[in-house]
Amino acid sequence: MMEELKGKRKEIKDITLKILELVKKRLKLAKEIGDIKRKLNLPVEDYNVEAELKREVIDYCNRENLDPQLGLKVLSLLIQESIKLEKENDTFTLSKVIQEAKRLEKEGKEVIHLEVGELDFEPVKEALEGIKEGLRKGLYRYSDAKGDLELRSRLAKEFNQIYSLNLKEDNILITPGGRFALYLTFKSLLKMGEEVIGFEPIYPPYRQICELEGIRFIPIRTELEKGWSPDINLVQKNISKLTRMMIINYPNNPTGKILSRKEMEELIGIAKDWDLFILNDEVYSSFSFKGPFNSLLTFNYDKSIVISSFSKSHSMSGFRVGYIIAKEETIDKMVKLQSLMITCMPPFLQYSALKALEAKTKKFVEEVKRRAEEVSKRLKDLPVRFYEPDGALYIFPEVIKKEFNSDKFVKDMLYKHGVALASGKNFGDYPKNFRLSLCQPIERLLESIDKMKKELE
Amino acid sequence: MMEELKGKRKEIKDITLKILELVKKRLKLAKEIGDIKRKLNLPVEDYNVEAELKREVIDYCNRENLDPQLGLKVLSLLIQESIKLEKENDTFTLSKVIQEAKRLEKEGKEVIHLEVGELDFEPVKEALEGIKEGLRKGLYRYSDAKGDLELRSRLAKEFNQIYSLNLKEDNILITPGGRFALYLTFKSLLKMGEEVIGFEPIYPPYRQICELEGIRFIPIRTELEKGWSPDINLVQKNISKLTRMMIINYPNNPTGKILSRKEMEELIGIAKDWDLFILNDEVYSSFSFKGPFNSLLTFNYDKSIVISSFSKSHSMSGFRVGYIIAKEETIDKMVKLQSLMITCMPPFLQYSALKALEAKTKKFVEEVKRRAEEVSKRLKDLPVRFYEPDGALYIFPEVIKKEFNSDKFVKDMLYKHGVALASGKNFGDYPKNFRLSLCQPIERLLESIDKMKKELE
Repeated sequence: MMEELKGKRKEIKDITLKILELVKKRLKLAKEIGDIKRKLNLPVEDYNVEAELKREVIDYCNRENLDPQLGLKVLSLLIQESIKLEKENDTFTLSKVIQEAKRLEKEGKEVIHLEVGELDFEPVKEALEGIKEGLRKGLYRYSDAKGDLELRSRLAKEFNQIYSLNLKEDNILITPGGRFALYLTFKSLLKMGEEVIGFEPIYPPYRQICELEGIRFIPIRTELEKGWSPDINLVQKNISKLTRMMIINYPNNPTGKILSRKEMEELIGIAKDWDLFILNDEVYSSFSFKGPFNSLLTFNYDKSIVISSFSKSHSMSGFRVGYIIAKEETIDKMVKLQSLMITCMPPFLQYSALKALEAKTKKFVEEVKRRAEEVSKRLKDLPVRFYEPDGALYIFPEVIKKEFNSDKFVKDMLYKHGVALASGKNFGDYPKNFRLSLCQPIERLLESIDKMKKELE
Repeated sequence: MMEELKGKRKEIKDITLKILELVKKRLKLAKEIGDIKRKLNLPVEDYNVEAELKREVIDYCNRENLDPQLGLKVLSLLIQESIKLEKENDTFTLSKVIQEAKRLEKEGKEVIHLEVGELDFEPVKEALEGIKEGLRKGLYRYSDAKGDLELRSRLAKEFNQIYSLNLKEDNILITPGGRFALYLTFKSLLKMGEEVIGFEPIYPPYRQICELEGIRFIPIRTELEKGWSPDINLVQKNISKLTRMMIINYPNNPTGKILSRKEMEELIGIAKDWDLFILNDEVYSSFSFKGPFNSLLTFNYDKSIVISSFSKSHSMSGFRVGYIIAKEETIDKMVKLQSLMITCMPPFLQYSALKALEAKTKKFVEEVKRRAEEVSKRLKDLPVRFYEPDGALYIFPEVIKKEFNSDKFVKDMLYKHGVALASGKNFGDYPKNFRLSLCQPIERLLESIDKMKKELE
């Protein structure tokens, strides 16, 4: 039997090397295809061709009784390797802007910060008091990885009241900020080689986390001309059997768009048809200027996931408290991962969030709304067009000028005028746009716009 | 040219399916090998055979000008798939114990918690005051993803003073707890298919994080009979060209072992020879009973990584503040990932940690040392043998009884006697051992041991 074992091991080795031989051949072909595409001026990534190939892999696996997950993983490795050969990125990224703004300030220069979405308001005082009270109560030991029961119950109650839902505490997971909530969602629900679709312009971490985890991010472009509404045909065309999740983010960063109920229904309809998770990042939900916001949860779709946090709504950015709402079995998967990765959240921070829920935050919303209106008015003197925001903390103007390059503009605004912005290229292929955040007092905002005007003349 | 493109796409498809055909063949072979192994009573995982195969893959890739990382990724997928077919796990895991203990308490039963390493002391008061002061100072905004400069400087100074080092603030990254520090280290330095070695018995998350990330964890057994010292020959035998990191954890959880300087030098020598990272998890460093502890950093090896936290040393478990010390370029990689995953840590928590460094914590160490001595004395009445701890918060006795099964013992102790313990099987193949933590007052500890005695009679 030892001899048989040896023989089979030799066979395993030979097959392994034969697989690699084919991998090599495949890379060579991919490179040749890349060359042809360049000559024909076609994009490097072709999601339709890719989706078809994935379908064939799944069919093959099903036919041959091989785990399709494994087939997809192998394919995903191969595809990512091919694309890596052909991409480059020289955007003046948001993190470079932040870094450079800091450097300039160290040198004694003044910078107006319109590059990040951090409100200039103090945190609600209930949050500050809440921490102290939590410490007095001795809430500083290891705690439930899912989050404090009282906070989860209270959040469930809050959502149930606002939206007439029927959430229970076990539908909620408390996380160290909305960013980690995203990471947990992707990491626990999606596997390497699977696909998500998302709408560009888009908050960059969605895509970055996908890249980190080998998940395929399929971007669907939206346009200012169409009021940043998703084109349903384009959505349909980009979904395949491999798509597992649709990511949306309304109120939107960077466009300020909020979809109508009908538009939401259309998207959810597609998610249902394809049995997709649909994730709405609702961190800006309290900043809705034209009427009450409708959470994704009100559409009553079983595979909905809502991410939110206290960072914007209660101006608690540095507290790092976020949460995820989803069906119980989905939350359970995430809790396991959260437990492995961070053990638990500080319980006194969660108590602080609990207390923060008692605060009145209407004044925050009113002030940001006023800023949006004033800034929109002033922007009309500039050679730009833009969507007047329905909500969130940003405006995303497009500059109407030939030869305009948003990276260059953002550099000039920072180095010549001391105004920090985010280039449109951070959010997708929007080289004519830039994002400004409404997180400074109105005078500073208007001052900045006057400087932009000067630069654009 | 369009025709050529079509033709090449067809070729890509054919090659992809041919690869999958071979993958299928390979899995079939792996299953047959598994069957033979079972008949011969050989273990499912054979690290030597695996290492040889990986060597051949690397050689092939180098010869054929194919990226060896890609080759390893493909192989890693295949190997993990094969092993998945043949494993099972029915341990009464630590998390089950914790869950069950909670359930019993809810039912009104009393439980003595010796299952987790959370000290029964109050956090140092400087930490509690520090949070309040940090809030008064307005430290509640987004902050540097690397951590607060003042805390990093102060930690560098602290280590430089204690160990005569030359650390700078950029050698340090502040993390939300030691657990996340581990995750960041693995995720930013190791790729799928690469290997780490670690010494069993071992704290389970090391292995679990590897499994999550597709990193191969190669366990090296240590034995009570050899005073839990690593067998250098065994280490040599288990390292391959694929090994990237050696994980150590002294003072050790669960054994309480601290290696001698000579033993450390031997391990570091091997790490140097193979150009490995060496990670020491030093969260228990302040709990050293037989003289001052020597950090891994004192051995002056460039690829050293030290993880630590305030959870044990300052009894700040629920504050979730940990840190990583390594060379600057290593820290930089980790910072990128931390920024993507959690944005930043709450700055007032970091201020609290800064203040905690002013606290005197000698009384914690003395109390735990006393507990270790008293418990060791009392354990001598039981049919067990064990290593009297040099440090940390645990004792890991082995029961000298035929037919003893630690899972069953842990269940009996919990359900019959209300004492929560951790089975040896959590830490590797140690079905005769159990771990008790020294995190309860001495009377409770002795009472628990009397109950164990009863159960073992």
